Parts: sequence; C-alpha cells; structure tokens
Amino acid sequence: MTSATPPPAGSGNPYTPAPEHKFTFGLWTVGWQGRDPFGDATRAPLDPVESVTRLAELGAYGVTFHDDDVIPFGSSDADRDARIKRFRQALDSTGLVVPMATTNLFTHPVFKDGAFTANDRDVRRFALRKTIRNIDLAVELGAKVYVAWGGREGAESGAAKDVRVALDRMKEAFDLLGDYVTEQGYDLRFAIEPKPNEPRGDILLPTVGHALAFINSLERPDIVGVNPEVGHEQMAGLNFPHGIAQALWHGKLFHIDLNGQTGIKYDQDLRFGAGDLRAAFWLVDLLETAGYEGMRHFDFKPPRTEDYDGVWASAAGCMRNYLILKERAAAFRADPQVQEALRASRLDELALPTVAEGETLADLLADRTAYEDFDPEAAAARGMAFEHLDQLAMNHLLAAR
Amino acid sequence: MTSATPPPAGSGNPYTPAPEHKFTFGLWTVGWQGRDPFGDATRAPLDPVESVTRLAELGAYGVTFHDDDVIPFGSSDADRDARIKRFRQALDSTGLVVPMATTNLFTHPVFKDGAFTANDRDVRRFALRKTIRNIDLAVELGAKVYVAWGGREGAESGAAKDVRVALDRMKEAFDLLGDYVTEQGYDLRFAIEPKPNEPRGDILLPTVGHALAFINSLERPDIVGVNPEVGHEQMAGLNFPHGIAQALWHGKLFHIDLNGQTGIKYDQDLRFGAGDLRAAFWLVDLLETAGYEGMRHFDFKPPRTEDYDGVWASAAGCMRNYLILKERAAAFRADPQVQEALRASRLDELALPTVAEGETLADLLADRTAYEDFDPEAAAARGMAFEHLDQLAMNHLLAAR
Amino acid sequence: MTSATPPPAGSGNPYTPAPEHKFTFGLWTVGWQGRDPFGDATRAPLDPVESVTRLAELGAYGVTFHDDDVIPFGSSDADRDARIKRFRQALDSTGLVVPMATTNLFTHPVFKDGAFTANDRDVRRFALRKTIRNIDLAVELGAKVYVAWGGREGAESGAAKDVRVALDRMKEAFDLLGDYVTEQGYDLRFAIEPKPNEPRGDILLPTVGHALAFINSLERPDIVGVNPEVGHEQMAGLNFPHGIAQALWHGKLFHIDLNGQTGIKYDQDLRFGAGDLRAAFWLVDLLETAGYEGMRHFDFKPPRTEDYDGVWASAAGCMRNYLILKERAAAFRADPQVQEALRASRLDELALPTVAEGETLADLLADRTAYEDFDPEAAAARGMAFEHLDQLAMNHLLAAR
Amino acid sequence: MTSATPPPAGSGNPYTPAPEHKFTFGLWTVGWQGRDPFGDATRAPLDPVESVTRLAELGAYGVTFHDDDVIPFGSSDADRDARIKRFRQALDSTGLVVPMATTNLFTHPVFKDGAFTANDRDVRRFALRKTIRNIDLAVELGAKVYVAWGGREGAESGAAKDVRVALDRMKEAFDLLGDYVTEQGYDLRFAIEPKPNEPRGDILLPTVGHALAFINSLERPDIVGVNPEVGHEQMAGLNFPHGIAQALWHGKLFHIDLNGQTGIKYDQDLRFGAGDLRAAFWLVDLLETAGYEGMRHFDFKPPRTEDYDGVWASAAGCMRNYLILKERAAAFRADPQVQEALRASRLDELALPTVAEGETLADLLADRTAYEDFDPEAAAARGMAFEHLDQLAMNHLLAAR
Repeated sequence: MTSATPPPAGSGNPYTPAPEHKFTFGLWTVGWQGRDPFGDATRAPLDPVESVTRLAELGAYGVTFHDDDVIPFGSSDADRDARIKRFRQALDSTGLVVPMATTNLFTHPVFKDGAFTANDRDVRRFALRKTIRNIDLAVELGAKVYVAWGGREGAESGAAKDVRVALDRMKEAFDLLGDYVTEQGYDLRFAIEPKPNEPRGDILLPTVGHALAFINSLERPDIVGVNPEVGHEQMAGLNFPHGIAQALWHGKLFHIDLNGQTGIKYDQDLRFGAGDLRAAFWLVDLLETAGYEGMRHFDFKPPRTEDYDGVWASAAGCMRNYLILKERAAAFRADPQVQEALRASRLDELALPTVAEGETLADLLADRTAYEDFDPEAAAARGMAFEHLDQLAMNHLLAAR
Repeated sequence: MTSATPPPAGSGNPYTPAPEHKFTFGLWTVGWQGRDPFGDATRAPLDPVESVTRLAELGAYGVTFHDDDVIPFGSSDADRDARIKRFRQALDSTGLVVPMATTNLFTHPVFKDGAFTANDRDVRRFALRKTIRNIDLAVELGAKVYVAWGGREGAESGAAKDVRVALDRMKEAFDLLGDYVTEQGYDLRFAIEPKPNEPRGDILLPTVGHALAFINSLERPDIVGVNPEVGHEQMAGLNFPHGIAQALWHGKLFHIDLNGQTGIKYDQDLRFGAGDLRAAFWLVDLLETAGYEGMRHFDFKPPRTEDYDGVWASAAGCMRNYLILKERAAAFRADPQVQEALRASRLDELALPTVAEGETLADLLADRTAYEDFDPEAAAARGMAFEHLDQLAMNHLLAAR
Repeated sequence: MTSATPPPAGSGNPYTPAPEHKFTFGLWTVGWQGRDPFGDATRAPLDPVESVTRLAELGAYGVTFHDDDVIPFGSSDADRDARIKRFRQALDSTGLVVPMATTNLFTHPVFKDGAFTANDRDVRRFALRKTIRNIDLAVELGAKVYVAWGGREGAESGAAKDVRVALDRMKEAFDLLGDYVTEQGYDLRFAIEPKPNEPRGDILLPTVGHALAFINSLERPDIVGVNPEVGHEQMAGLNFPHGIAQALWHGKLFHIDLNGQTGIKYDQDLRFGAGDLRAAFWLVDLLETAGYEGMRHFDFKPPRTEDYDGVWASAAGCMRNYLILKERAAAFRADPQVQEALRASRLDELALPTVAEGETLADLLADRTAYEDFDPEAAAARGMAFEHLDQLAMNHLLAAR
Repeated sequence: MTSATPPPAGSGNPYTPAPEHKFTFGLWTVGWQGRDPFGDATRAPLDPVESVTRLAELGAYGVTFHDDDVIPFGSSDADRDARIKRFRQALDSTGLVVPMATTNLFTHPVFKDGAFTANDRDVRRFALRKTIRNIDLAVELGAKVYVAWGGREGAESGAAKDVRVALDRMKEAFDLLGDYVTEQGYDLRFAIEPKPNEPRGDILLPTVGHALAFINSLERPDIVGVNPEVGHEQMAGLNFPHGIAQALWHGKLFHIDLNGQTGIKYDQDLRFGAGDLRAAFWLVDLLETAGYEGMRHFDFKPPRTEDYDGVWASAAGCMRNYLILKERAAAFRADPQVQEALRASRLDELALPTVAEGETLADLLADRTAYEDFDPEAAAARGMAFEHLDQLAMNHLLAAR
C-alpha cells in the first residue's frame, strides 16, 4: 500500500488521514509549478478547484490561500467574483473548510523592497489595502486566522533599510489591521510567520523569538500570534520544537506550517517528515501533548522533478508521516519504561518550583543546604541518564523495541 | 605604528583608545588560557591585577568579571576577601571601573545540565545563591549591569528538557533575582545574553528575539534587557546590526558583547573587526547614531596560538578597529553625496507614517490612489538605488574615495 | 529491553551487536571525560583496560587509539612498556582487535599551530617522529589502517598560513610516512580524516573532496585513502552519503567514523543515529550494499551530562541504531514495490551508458533523435516519481508499512 | 565620484578599470531580470548588444555567455545565425573578447533531474549535443575556457540518484567532451564549477575539493580544471581563499567566478566585495601574488531592487572593489613591518622542507633533537604573533595606518 493510494477512511489504518486530524494545505503548495531561481516551471497551472477536490479525496480537512492563488493579481471585479464563486462551490461540494488565508505581498515586482516596510509610502498603502481586501474575503470564507509572511520586508545591504524605522512601519501596519478587524467585528486573529532570509538577504523578524517580541509592542497583542514554519527556523539552525515550545509558553501558537528542510541552506519546503526526522518526531510529540488545537497546516513544495501524480503522492506523504509520528510519540509517552526513564532523568523535579510554595527570598538565603552545605562535587557526580532516555525515544520512533 | 603599541592618549590619533570611549573587557577574555575541546591550555594563568594594569595602559575604561574569575570556585571566605581586596586596589590605582559583572554557571560540572533550569532542584537553588552572592559583590564594586548567560540551559536530546517547564523555572529565577535587587535597593539591571548552541546542543532563549520575548513575561520586565554578542547571533546566520536595532527599538539594549565570528560554526570569539567586517561597520554606525550610552564591551578570546604579547595586541586591536569603524561611519553619514543617495533610496519616505496624521482607516479605504488608481507597474519600475548607496558605504569603509 | 542491556549475543535479536558486525570504538570516545570549551571534566578518567572489557561485553569487535590514549604524553619508556603490556593483555583476554590507530597531534600546546604544517620546523619534525613511533606500535598491535586527522593544520587569519606552502609540507609528511611503512614492509594504509573547522578557524583539507584531491598528488597514492566522519562533513552542510559514495567511487574509503550531528554548528559527536536519522539510513544502505568491508567505527562523545552508565548506554545505542538501520535498509532493497518504484524513477536507465557500446562520437553527432528530433517538452513532462520512492523509504525506515 | 560614474580610463585613478585588468562579466549577470523563487521579474529583458556596449564603456575586458543567453532555447537556425552575427558585431565594435563560454543545462524543465547525470538517457544525450553545439560557437568566438556548472546534477532524496553510477555518467560526459575538443583540435580547456546545493537539495561535486578529485579520474585530466565561485564555497562555510590556494597548488585554477555572499544561506550572487570583505581581500592578495593569469570574471546578480542604473552601478562596483583590494594587498605585501611580522610568525620557516635536502628517513629517526631531546614545553611557549600580523592586514585593508 503506497502513500499515494491510502486506504479508505474508516479502514482502521492509523495512518489514514481524515478530517478530524485537521490537516490543511495551502493552494500554493500542490499548485506550485516548479519555477525556481535557475529554472522554468515544470508543471502546468493547477485549477484551485482541482486542488480542493483532490485534497478532499486524500483526507484533508481544509485549504488555505493567498489572494492571488484564487484571484490572479489585477483581475477585474467580475472575474474575481466568478473565481470566488467557483472556489466556494468546490469547498461546499467537498466539505473542505478554509481556516486560514493570507496575502501575497511578494510576487509582484511592486513589492521588491517590501510591503508594510517598503521605503516607498505608496507601496505600503497599497499593501495595506490589498491585505484588507483579502481579509474581507477570508472572513467571508470562514477563516479564523490570517497569516502574515513578510518575506520581502528586509534588505541586502546595510543602509538600505533603517531597521528601527521599518519596525515603526511594521507596527503601524499591524496596529491598523488590528483596528480594522476589531471595527468590523471579525473573529479573526493574525499569525506572523518569521523567516531569516530568502528572498531578501536578511528579513525583519527573522525568528519566532523576534516575532514574539515584536507582538508585545503592538496595540492589540492579544489578537496577534505566530505561524512558525519548520524550515524557516531550521534555516537559522534553530531547534524547531524548542521554538514551538516557547511560542506555546507565551500562548502565541496560533497556526503552524509543517514541512521539511535539510539544514541551513535555501528554503526547501520538502514534504513533512523529510528533512530532520527526529525533530519532526519531537514536534508532533509536543503538538499532541500540549493541547494545540489549531490546524496541522502543510506548507511544502512538491519537488519540481514531479508530475502531478508525484504532487499528490507528496501531499499524501505529509499526512501519513504526521500520523506515523503521532502514533510513535503516543507509544513513547505511554511506555512505563519511558516514564521510569523520565523520572531517572528528573523531569519530575524540573516541574517543581525552585523556591517552595510559601518560601521567601529570606528563607532561601538562610537555607544552608542551598549553598554553604551543598556539595557540588556530589551533585555533579549524578548522571542525567539522557542517553538511555533518548535511545528509548529512538526505539519508539523506529518501532524497534 | 602597530596595534600593540598605540600612540599615547591625547596624541590626536583618532584610533587611540581612551576612557571616554567606554571600552571594557572581561577578565576572562585576556585571561583565557587557550583550553579548547581538543587541546590543553597554551598560556599560564593571568593574575586579574595584571589584566587590570595592562588594560588600563592600553586605554580601556573598565573591566568586567564572573565571580570565579576573581575568586576561584570553592574559595574560603578569607581567601575570597583577600582576592577582592587586591582586585579593588588594582582598580583604584588604575582608575578602571567595573560597570558589569556576571556569574559563572557553566564551568563546574555541577552545572552540566544547566543552572536556573537544571533538572535537579538543588542545583537550581545553588545557582540562585551563587548568583545572589556575586550580585552583592558586583554592586559593591559599582556595577550597574548584571549579565546572565545561560550557556548550560539547554539540551542535546528531545525528552531531556521540557522546554515549557524549563521556561517556568527560568522565569522563576529572574523574578526572584528581580525581587532581590529591588528589596536591596540596588541600582542594577539584568542583561540576558542569548546564544543558539554550544556548549549545549540547543540553548534556551537562542537569539536576541527569543530573549526579548521572554523578558516581557517577567514580573519586572523594566529591569531586564539583553546583552547580545556579535558571534552568538552570527552563529545562527542572523544579521547582527538588525538584531541590535530591534533590541534598541524595544529599549532593551542594556549591554553589548563585541567580538568577531566567521560565519556559522563553533563559537570563535575573534577580536572585534575580525570576522564579518561589513557587519561590524554597520554595527558601529548604529551604536554611534542611535544614542547607545552603554559600554563597548569586548568579549573575545585571543587565539591560543598567541603568547601574552599576542593577547595584548589582540585586545588593542579590538579597540583600534572600533575606532577606525567609528571614524568611517561618521564620514559616511556626513557625506552630502551619501545624504543624497539616501534620499534617492527613499529612506526619508520610510520615516513617514504610512497613514498620515489624522487620517482614519475609513480615509485610507476611501483613497482610490491607494488601491484602485494605484499603478503597480509604474511603482515597480522605480529603482531603489541601493547598490549605489552600498558602494558609497564601501568607499567610506575602505577610505577609497 | 533497553539499549543499555542488550539481549545476549546469539539470542536471535537482529539488533544485538556481535563481533561479525565489525563495530569498533576509539578509546577516546567512551573515555572522554566531558571537558568542553566552557566546562571542566564531568567524569573521572577511564582505564583503557576497563574500556576494552566493557566494549567486549557490549558486542564490539575492536578498539582503536591515539598514542596518548594508552600512553600519556611524556611517559617514560618503562611506563610506556608497562601500559602497552596491560593494554595488550586486555585485548588478548577479551578477543578484541585493534584494526586502526592514530596519533594525537592536537592536545599538547606544542601543536597549537599544527603538526605536519606548523610554521615551526622543529614542531613538524617532532610530529613526524611521534607519528612514526606510534605507527610501529599500531602495526605491532595488528592495525591495518592508520588514521591522520590534522585538526590543528589550519589558521584563524589570512596571512598566518600560506596554504600552498602548507600543502607542500603536508605532502612531504605523507610521502615520508609512506616511505617509512614501505621500507618497513608494513601492511598498513593511511586514512586522512577531513574536517572543515574547529579547533582551527579553517582546517586544511576541509572535506572528503579536498582530501581525495590531495591524495592524488602524493608519491604513493595507493596506500592513502580517507576516513570520513559523519559530523565533519555535516558541519559543512554536505550530504554525507554522497561524500561516501564519491570516496567509494574513487576506491578510497579505507575507514569511516560514525556519529551524529544536528547540522552546521560545533562538532557534537553524538552517538550514531542521533542527528540526521535519514542520512544515517542512506549511509547504512550504502555501506551495506557497496561492498564496504572495513570497520564500522564509532567516533562519538557521550554527552557530559552522563555518568558511566550513560556512557555505556550511549555506546550500545550506536551499535543498536546501526543494526536497526541495516535491517530497514535491507527490507527496503528487497521490497518488490521499491524495485518497481526504482524502475519508475529510471534508476536502471541511469546505469546505462549514455553513449552505447561501440557508438562513436560521430554516431552521437549524427543521431537526430538525440538533438534535432528530440522533443524537450515531451521529455520534460515525464515525472520522476521520486516522492513516491522516498515515501517508500520512509515507510521502511519507520517500519510503517 | 561615484562607482557608477568612474573616472575616464587613463586618468591615473588606481580604481579605474581597464582592459588590462581582465575583468569579464557573464551576459546573464547584468542581464538577470530579477526573477526569484518568490517573485516575478523586476527588469525588462536586456539586449546582449546593450550589455556588451555598456560593459565596454565601464572598462571591462570581455563577456561570457551560456548558449541560451545569446540564442533563446529552441531558436531556429536562421534566428540563431542572426543573433550570433549581431553579437559578434557588438564584440568587434567594442573590442570586447569572449574568453569563456558555457552551456545552460538547467533552465529548461527537461533538465529538472539533471543533464549529464539525468536518470533519463535521452536527456543525457541531448545535454551532450547541446554542449557540443555551443562548444563550436565558443571556439568560433575565441573562448579558451569552457565552464561546466552542473547545477541540476543532484537529488533531493536518497534513492533518487545512485551517486556512484551518476559519477560514472559524469565521467563519461567529460571524457566524451574531451575527445571532442581533442579531435577537433580546439585550444579549449574545461572548468568545472562546483556548488553544494540549490537548485538541487544536494549537488554532485559539491566543493572545489570534490571537483578536483573527480578530475583526476578522467581520461584527459590535463584539459579539465575548476571554476570556483566565491559564494558557492561560502555556502558550505568554507574558506574561499584556502580553496583557491589548493586549486592553484594542483595547477587547476582555470577560471574563477567572483561575487559576494553573506554566509551559509541561499545563493546570493552579490557584487564582488559585498559579503565577506576580509575573505575578498585575501583572495585578491592570493590571485595577484600567485601568478594567476586567467580572467577576473564576475558572476553576480544585481539585486532585483535595482533598475538598470543600479545594474551598471553594481557592475562598476565589482571592478572598483577588486582594484581597491588589489591596491591594499600590494601595500600590505610591500610594507617592511609586515615582512618583519611574517618572519616573526615564521612563515619563512614554513617554506623550509621539514626534512633537509639530502636528509634520509634514517637521519630523521636518528636525530635526537627531533624527538628525544626536543622540549615540547619550550616550543609550546613560543607565541605565533598572528594577531599582530592580522591587525597589520586590517590596517592595510582599511587604509588606517
């Protein structure tokens, strides 16, 4: 049984995707034609209606879109309406939902120096209007999250962008968009998607951390969170599950982009599971145990070596790999030997407050066992038993018990 | 005239360091003996008094220290007092100040799994007490900033650290330290120093962004900022001046660690100027124009190929390179041709609010020039002239006009 | 059943290491005390005899050593003899062999600027003599491969090393060592171990490719090959199995160092399997199908969080992971569906010569189907079906069919 | 005086490019329209004749081209002839030469899985024919070097390419091309251009080292060398001047691609001098002192923020920066203080053979000063004085004496 021809839903196969798994795909993912910096498109354009139909068959829950994915840049109003109608019909007939939408502020050359932080003020105003227009459509289609990837907000050289001033403009944009959805009474939250570089030499808000910090300076921080993407953090060599954990800790994981990346290089957008498989395991373990209730959104690019059979095989693989990892992570957590190993590594002790309930600073300072009588050599001699624990995880990941 | 033998202060040489430049050095920098993961020490231990004396001669303003730099781990109280006394005498006799201090929570094996986030609770309590003890000394010696580098707070494997729980412990630690300095009435602020990895596989709060976000969750965010280090951000491939700009934008650049790094690899701690020279230029340009009033603190390691003559040459080189770059950046900003180029690149337009003063959201939505009548093709055709601008910067950096 | 307590040999468990698997360990791996650039040792020294005994119990085939691992630098001849005798007795009593040995030319400060390419000529001569002395011991103990890791051959700054001149010195050293083993009639081949950086800013012969090229310039290229290390190539972001394939293609894979690394950062030396698991799968697939008959040598460092229980768990994990991956790769290759997928991806066609047997250049130029009548659009439309193939590999790796 | 408006040739300004400097540009560099993975073209197509004219005005010596740069893929023979004629006329009227040409084996989707190593045999044959056809044109136009960048020869997943078999195909291709130019009596040498990744996940022959090793396995190694590109090696974190030094040491630096890159990330193709400025300094120092007589070829992409004024400013900047660095490197080498510092760092001693002329292995083994009486502690105590030397280089680079 191959990934491209999954068993029918309800077959009991734990790796069969179904709507309850909340798997969603960007239209731009399966619809990517394979144009890259050194080569022309290898695949014909894909009708969004076809994407919706095929993804529904594969077991997806929903689709997401940039405005330009459904309505080409510069379409007339009549054309726009017709395209939206067809798209909506496809959604209705398949039952797929649209939980998220976003704006394309990077393809057209007008955005070559950015959108919300373009040096040209008229470009910034156009970007805001283009965004607002698509927010209306997103809400109409039922989206609850609006993603903002500022891929062109950045620079290749030092004087080209005054970063502090650009952050003022970025804040202005998000504050204004926050005003807009609030005034409209929309039930919509924003999710900023960080990326360190590419297509700009350096992009503003390059990591999950920088975006989280920025959000705290907004007028309406409550309605703004992050949309981390696996490959984007890994392009900076960062531990993706660690970044997600911090985003969850701040209550800011509003959405997530799942894909694969083989280390620090150009943005690969491999299918989920490809790339760093062990990081993918820990990610799924985290999402499934931390109460994350959002979408499992795949933002990948089927390699340009593939025809459309390969595209659908790749999309199916994303979901299958998630479900395999979910099964393995659940088994890991349920294993009594693992639970014992976690105790041996004192994870339970990490969960205890360092200063006891009711203990004051003065108490701590007076506690001779904490300093004067503490024996650092003896404490240092205790092994952490992390290698044993990690090998247990490896055994579960590989189903090699 | 070589870097190791600078002209006397007051000679009018613009590259001659003097106390007003606020150059400071960690005792552990010139005192590094050259022990690395694959090799033993190449230099004999350096008496902190000798460091103070030599750095004063070279034109430094102050020195900084970890507790263990001045008082070896496990010293008796009497020994401790004697060492502090000698150190203080050296400061008094040279006029060097101690604007910053920090805690060594990484060398002793007791910290092998971290300090504030060690799984072992007694290690966490010891770490807090060790820190508080040195805060007292820091304040006594006049420090206004207390740096916290959590180099051991992290993990090599996925289950070894529950990051969300660890962040709870990290917050607990900083909240408690904040209580302490507040209760004591100390005029001391904390500066968290981020690093992505090494010596742990992944370190918590890996970048300036993650640290800034974390600070916002503390009970006393006002007294906590960041201490970014050139090489640490560059180890994640991030643009250092961009990160500093964001830290400044948040009002959180409490301190800075200047050094050099040649890209994404192990932590090199080269002297300032070595490594990415163009980034160093833009960094100095930013610090000197943004009103940063803190120390210019060098946190470098003279390569283990050097004897002590090389150590002092390296320390002198840090300061010299800063002063050269300062001169070049000032000339760049003062050049009328540069000012014209900045206008041609519309930096002045970036400084204009996107929505005019008094303009409402409704006004923006009603402005047909912002969307309906906006000509994206025409706007896209405007060149940004960044290459010309950047070449002017290159000319100034290289004094090649 | 945990990795630290494997089932007894002969139990039929496919993951149980046994001497026929040719697993070997450096004494310096399990014996690493955990000293890192920021911290002191966390483990007491380990007696080589203890290492030999424990590794034999775990199912290893042999051990390898640097001279200084068995005989501390500067030992007297008498002490040296006594230590060798004890070591040999441990080998005899356990049946472990010594298939490889190497020289420590990096720990002592005398090698701070390199060994064979140190600027100081007396250091170079000392390095040659130290190497020759240990070659004699290596041969005495039965080694067939002598590894040369030139970790200190490099520089941190541009003028410090004239690389062309340094390569002359490097060639001189290997030519001389080749003369020596030839004159002595030793059955010993050299294996150069490349590394891009750390502990030097840049190391000479930074990758497998650079070493292979260098070997071709030696007087006796036949007796010199490479000893690639997983993490070293991955520190340059290179695909390790690709590098191994090229080394095999040149007939130069004389030895291999297996470990784990999580991307471009400091040298982690994680246990095999940790790090890039998918690359490890393809590596084992390659080694097991390409007829590589050398050792499966682990060159890892048990994390300094571990006590000696953790060290042995980590060593056992290296072997276990290799055996799991070997089983999975074999199943992948044996699967008829995979064989069909390989054909669908035209791997069989890649194996056909581009120019047919007997076909001349003139024939190719006259073949209109090759150019004039070739339809590039039609050819471009053929999907490569790589995603399906790769998902099949994922299924096998994860035992998720 | 800006970089875009250089002083007239002969003005005596040392930074004014002139034909004797051998600066050449690929037509695809100034002609790049700015299409990137996330955005459409920002510049209109550029007529090759215009490129030739403008580059001549700026002081270039020659231009280089891919077949498709001059003759669009799929052109009729008549159209081809007409385009070549116009191109040749532009060369004649400006005096620009064509010292190098190359084949585009990456843009058309037919090459999506490679050219010489595509799994599809008919694609491989087409690639050979396309190459041979352009070799004829290259020779006709006077080229002496034919570059081969195999940007599509690689894979994104492990089973998609059997690397050893692919190297057989690669060797077959180069052997056949070598036969062709030999049979034709062409005075043309090949230069393989390595790159680690992008547009493929991993590319075969990823570094200068791998390419040099491969060349040794060809039937005609003498006529094949390398064409290293600054950014390509830096994308693997490698020291570019070191790689060039090794290529020179092997006598294989047939051509070079100069540009800029800011570390390990996507291929940036910045103008020369941008990116790692210190590496650029050492590179120019090496090229100018090592007797390299080939072209100084710029392979860069003017950022897509630029209009054509910016393109020409960027091209002029490449040449200007080379000339500035050349001046500085020459001053560095000529400085008596530097020469003294080089001696203090024992570069002269590195140039001495380790084993004296006439000295035998037996002599070395008998020399007690080399081992038995050698004092490693004393030798270790000698400082290398590299920091002083490197600071002198910095002073010269920055003209800050």
